[in-house]
Amino acid sequence: MTERLDRFRTLLTDHNVDSIVVTHPANRRYLTGYSAHEALPDTVVGACFIDSDVARLLTGKTNLDWAKSEAEPHGFVVEGWDRPWSRAIATEIKSRGWARTGFEDGAITVALYREIVTELDGASELVPIGQSISYLRRVKDAEEHARYARIAQIGDDAFVAATRNLTAGTTERELARRIDAELESCGSEGPSFPTIVASGPHAARPHHDPGDRPIEVGEPIIIDMGAMLDGYHGDLTRTIWVGEPSPRLREIYAAVESAQTAAFAAIRTGVSWDVPDATSRVAVAEAGLSEYLIHGLGHGVGLNVHELPTMTAGATDVFVGGEITTVEPGLYVPGWGGVRIEDVGVVEADGFRLITHAPKASFA
Amino acid sequence: MTERLDRFRTLLTDHNVDSIVVTHPANRRYLTGYSAHEALPDTVVGACFIDSDVARLLTGKTNLDWAKSEAEPHGFVVEGWDRPWSRAIATEIKSRGWARTGFEDGAITVALYREIVTELDGASELVPIGQSISYLRRVKDAEEHARYARIAQIGDDAFVAATRNLTAGTTERELARRIDAELESCGSEGPSFPTIVASGPHAARPHHDPGDRPIEVGEPIIIDMGAMLDGYHGDLTRTIWVGEPSPRLREIYAAVESAQTAAFAAIRTGVSWDVPDATSRVAVAEAGLSEYLIHGLGHGVGLNVHELPTMTAGATDVFVGGEITTVEPGLYVPGWGGVRIEDVGVVEADGFRLITHAPKASFA
Repeated sequence: MTERLDRFRTLLTDHNVDSIVVTHPANRRYLTGYSAHEALPDTVVGACFIDSDVARLLTGKTNLDWAKSEAEPHGFVVEGWDRPWSRAIATEIKSRGWARTGFEDGAITVALYREIVTELDGASELVPIGQSISYLRRVKDAEEHARYARIAQIGDDAFVAATRNLTAGTTERELARRIDAELESCGSEGPSFPTIVASGPHAARPHHDPGDRPIEVGEPIIIDMGAMLDGYHGDLTRTIWVGEPSPRLREIYAAVESAQTAAFAAIRTGVSWDVPDATSRVAVAEAGLSEYLIHGLGHGVGLNVHELPTMTAGATDVFVGGEITTVEPGLYVPGWGGVRIEDVGVVEADGFRLITHAPKASFA
Repeated sequence: MTERLDRFRTLLTDHNVDSIVVTHPANRRYLTGYSAHEALPDTVVGACFIDSDVARLLTGKTNLDWAKSEAEPHGFVVEGWDRPWSRAIATEIKSRGWARTGFEDGAITVALYREIVTELDGASELVPIGQSISYLRRVKDAEEHARYARIAQIGDDAFVAATRNLTAGTTERELARRIDAELESCGSEGPSFPTIVASGPHAARPHHDPGDRPIEVGEPIIIDMGAMLDGYHGDLTRTIWVGEPSPRLREIYAAVESAQTAAFAAIRTGVSWDVPDATSRVAVAEAGLSEYLIHGLGHGVGLNVHELPTMTAGATDVFVGGEITTVEPGLYVPGWGGVRIEDVGVVEADGFRLITHAPKASFA
């Protein structure tokens, strides 16, 4: 973690600021280890302040023991703050004498920002740092890589255990709860996100809340699930069926499979983030199914389930190696259903190294 | 729901704006019924735009079916938008010709705001509306009152079922999972928030993640749990024990019980939000235990687990009747443990009508 702080401090120079205030829950956890997480835009459960010498975390007094136990081992001085948080933040900035203070303009609301500016009364200039910390987080370190090997293993094992002996008539919700139970018994902290089980026509929705629909023979069943460990999110999608797949399902599945295989081959250090997405679209176009493409190819995973790199059309950044991303092409046919296949892997100099290994059908 | 829109439209006059853009997940759901929820400050899953004539919801195309099924019955026109969201929001504002557009400064980040302003290029003035929608939501309507009777019943039943036959040696985590399972089998959509089970010294932390500590005889066990229905959050805390409570536990429990009873008696329409909190503090002071008070008395519940009214020192608003709030005094003794008792009730003209009825000990 002190290595993380060292890397973080290069941002002080990049943005020409004396310190940076960090309030985004994932960025704050990444630096401090403190796992508190605000679920709403108008709440703030803590702020950390890092300059070239000191790293401090302020949080609510009701969370103080918890914050200390997690953040002190990472070199943070932890103290309780009092409402309003805007005043606590401004007071910290003023008392440390920082002339220029970086802040996350993508994490602080307009209301909180204006309150802080009022409280500062000109004592410090607030400098937006954009997505700088998200860019830092996109390259995973050795500890994170080791953790992801375990997250992928848990997800694979839970998928296999939950779908073994699946029979028609099982409802989406029953299968989703079976997956959640297997995730926990395989060692996950809980589902990485609400587990998706979308059967038949429901599979035409990329996001679907599992309901009471019983699964039928031969139709697509999209399962999107993930293990979670130390706040890090797994993400695994398989499309399966009971009995034999319908001809339509075979056709669509084969196209998605080809799209994924093509994307895998396109990922390596030095490639632009939009290239694998474009490559996968070519494969879908060759199958004549482009009209059913409605989302981008994939995204980084980490302390957020969606983070950088974002593999979509228009992305201009380049892989630098060490990123951990999903590759999840999908095709969605309104009224009929859909197919999505998603794996997670590591971007390396010579290619994309898969870390999920849950079994999947192949028609290619 | 159309009644809600009518009440909402009074804000157009209050703020002298042509329309209001709503992006806060709870406020957006309150108006549209659309249940998508962003978990991070830098994500936006949808925005609704309401002027005196039309109510429109824009959201990601992958969620379009879902959004239509939930929001169209509430009178919303639903359409898919394209990234960047800032451009989609500005385009909507410009195409409708609104000169003054209200926005939630407590929900929109500085980065998104600046992007929208750039895209607008002077075409409309953005007017912050503060917490206006939260204030609207604080008074619950008939449908919400009926829902809360059911939420309280589910929470009560799940508490009783999960704690029946509790024995020493059960771990915090085992009890928490039992509670979650009972919540679901009693009809809850899932836990209202991560269930807290804090035993012995862990009970000194208001927020505690249940761990592998086995429960011992005579020590406090704080259980904080809630049912969830249609996105509305229940909230119930009981402090229990296995066997006979220690003398210290009896003493602290009696003080918390007195604080809660005093607070109940202080709540009614016309009373300031800070009065019940102050009243409960008097009861704690009389027991000589004020040093162990570390949080406010209670909070409204609804589509957020914490919302208005906020019953803490310094609150200046007054109950108007119809609010649904928790009353949850607690005392926390570092190294020893703590006691918290929390019930939910409705603010009425002649007093506070409890809706949670889970059994609790009494030493007063």
